[in-house]
Amino acid sequence: ENLTFGQYSLVYNAFSFTFATMAAATLFLWLGRSQVGPAYKTALTISGLVTAIAAYHYFRIFESWEGAYSVKDGIVTASGYAFNDAYRYVDWLLTVPLLLIELILVMRLSQEETVSKSFKLGGAAALMIILGYPGEIATDIPTRVLWGTLSAIPFVYIMWQLFAGLGASINNQPENVRELVKKARLLTFASWGFYPIVYMIPYTNLSGSDVTVGVQVGYTIADLIAKAGVGILIYMIAVRKSQAEY
Amino acid sequence: ENLTFGQYSLVYNAFSFTFATMAAATLFLWLGRSQVGPAYKTALTISGLVTAIAAYHYFRIFESWEGAYSVKDGIVTASGYAFNDAYRYVDWLLTVPLLLIELILVMRLSQEETVSKSFKLGGAAALMIILGYPGEIATDIPTRVLWGTLSAIPFVYIMWQLFAGLGASINNQPENVRELVKKARLLTFASWGFYPIVYMIPYTNLSGSDVTVGVQVGYTIADLIAKAGVGILIYMIAVRKSQAEY
Ligand SMILES: CC1=C(/C=C/C(C)=C/C=C/C(C)=C/C=O)C(C)(C)CCC1
Ligand SMILES: CC1=C(/C=C/C(C)=C/C=C/C(C)=C/C=O)C(C)(C)CCC1
Repeated sequence: ENLTFGQYSLVYNAFSFTFATMAAATLFLWLGRSQVGPAYKTALTISGLVTAIAAYHYFRIFESWEGAYSVKDGIVTASGYAFNDAYRYVDWLLTVPLLLIELILVMRLSQEETVSKSFKLGGAAALMIILGYPGEIATDIPTRVLWGTLSAIPFVYIMWQLFAGLGASINNQPENVRELVKKARLLTFASWGFYPIVYMIPYTNLSGSDVTVGVQVGYTIADLIAKAGVGILIYMIAVRKSQAEY
Repeated sequence: ENLTFGQYSLVYNAFSFTFATMAAATLFLWLGRSQVGPAYKTALTISGLVTAIAAYHYFRIFESWEGAYSVKDGIVTASGYAFNDAYRYVDWLLTVPLLLIELILVMRLSQEETVSKSFKLGGAAALMIILGYPGEIATDIPTRVLWGTLSAIPFVYIMWQLFAGLGASINNQPENVRELVKKARLLTFASWGFYPIVYMIPYTNLSGSDVTVGVQVGYTIADLIAKAGVGILIYMIAVRKSQAEY
């Protein structure tokens, strides 16, 4: 079940790439704050927070990956220091509610609606992450299935809210951003749907090292899209809405 | 095939120099944002991101180079820890699309044209990098030639787009920047042309260590021109266009 040097390097470089992308996205989003109207500054602040928190965690994940293996003369062996999977879940616990709040903010609903939706969706998101973690670190498949299924309940609730609940308010958006808001929602939907799929990779009969690589690279791609990708869309929405409104 | 101490030091110092230059260029470009009109702030933000991402990767490349060799009493021996060539390609994957977007932004085309050209050229650039990597790490020449040739297809497409596609819009630029925009395009053209030439160094019958040094120093010089050099030109264009328009 040992990793080959190629597998090790793929994950290593994916983590480094993601750290750089998240850090770059953070600076882009925060520098962009000066280019949007006051109502959208908070959305960019939060978008940048999401990528900043992710940059921090990818830095840690990178170091943890490096520490978990000894690589000498192209041979990869476990160092005996465990790779810390919890960084991801800790990251999500912070960033998933923020991402939802960011989507809500950019829609510019009424103040009460913003607060109530933020609490409901943020709470459901936290529950989803907390229920998923025991499954992620479980060593047997039935335990993984059990917690994954429980975690899917708040997941489905959030997805339903995003479509049904926020659907109405999309039609109140200015013409030139309606498409972008729809795209942001779609990108959120598609990228979030990726996580449970990655979670299910161990259910297949791939070898141990392929599963490790698949899960790490899979979550990494999903994070890139859900955080940096959605962040850039939020930026474009904020710039266009500012042009229309200020 | 061992490196001499002089060869080792040349590459070592080139990496350190480039880290410092990229970091300095980043600060210059971002501080300059306050001196240009709103339409050009994004171009400077992105220019600075390109050099910031490069600074990060040169820091990593520097550390990786240091770790790959043991240097004692002026004798350089391989440490058994591989030098990670992937940092460069990972860097390009991020920075090359950004550089193209930056060139497009400074031309101030219509919103749709900006988005569609960014996607087309950015996608082609990503393809070029991804196809080049297997050749870069190949240990035999035919494999290197194969992937290099495939990678040259999107490369030629991009170059053709830069000249034919953007040529027309250059004539719509204000008088006092037309020359600068042409220069930025020319510098992009010249510096990009440098990369495939460096890639071909292993085709020559230079010794192994000369090839290593040539490739590392060659890509480093190309990066300095393509990123920091083009960034400064973009800055000058942005300042002049702001003077004309605001
Ligand atoms: C449904 C489900 C999951 C969903 C995870 C999601 C949807 C994570 C989203 C993370 C994001 C968007 C991070 C970016 O900031 C888990 C926990 C894998 C466990 C299996 C069931
Ligand atoms: C055509 C070609 C290549 C072109 C690389 C280029 C053009 C890289 C440009 C990088 C830049 C501009 C980085 C700065 O940010 C490769 C991949 C060496 C492989 C061989 C064929």
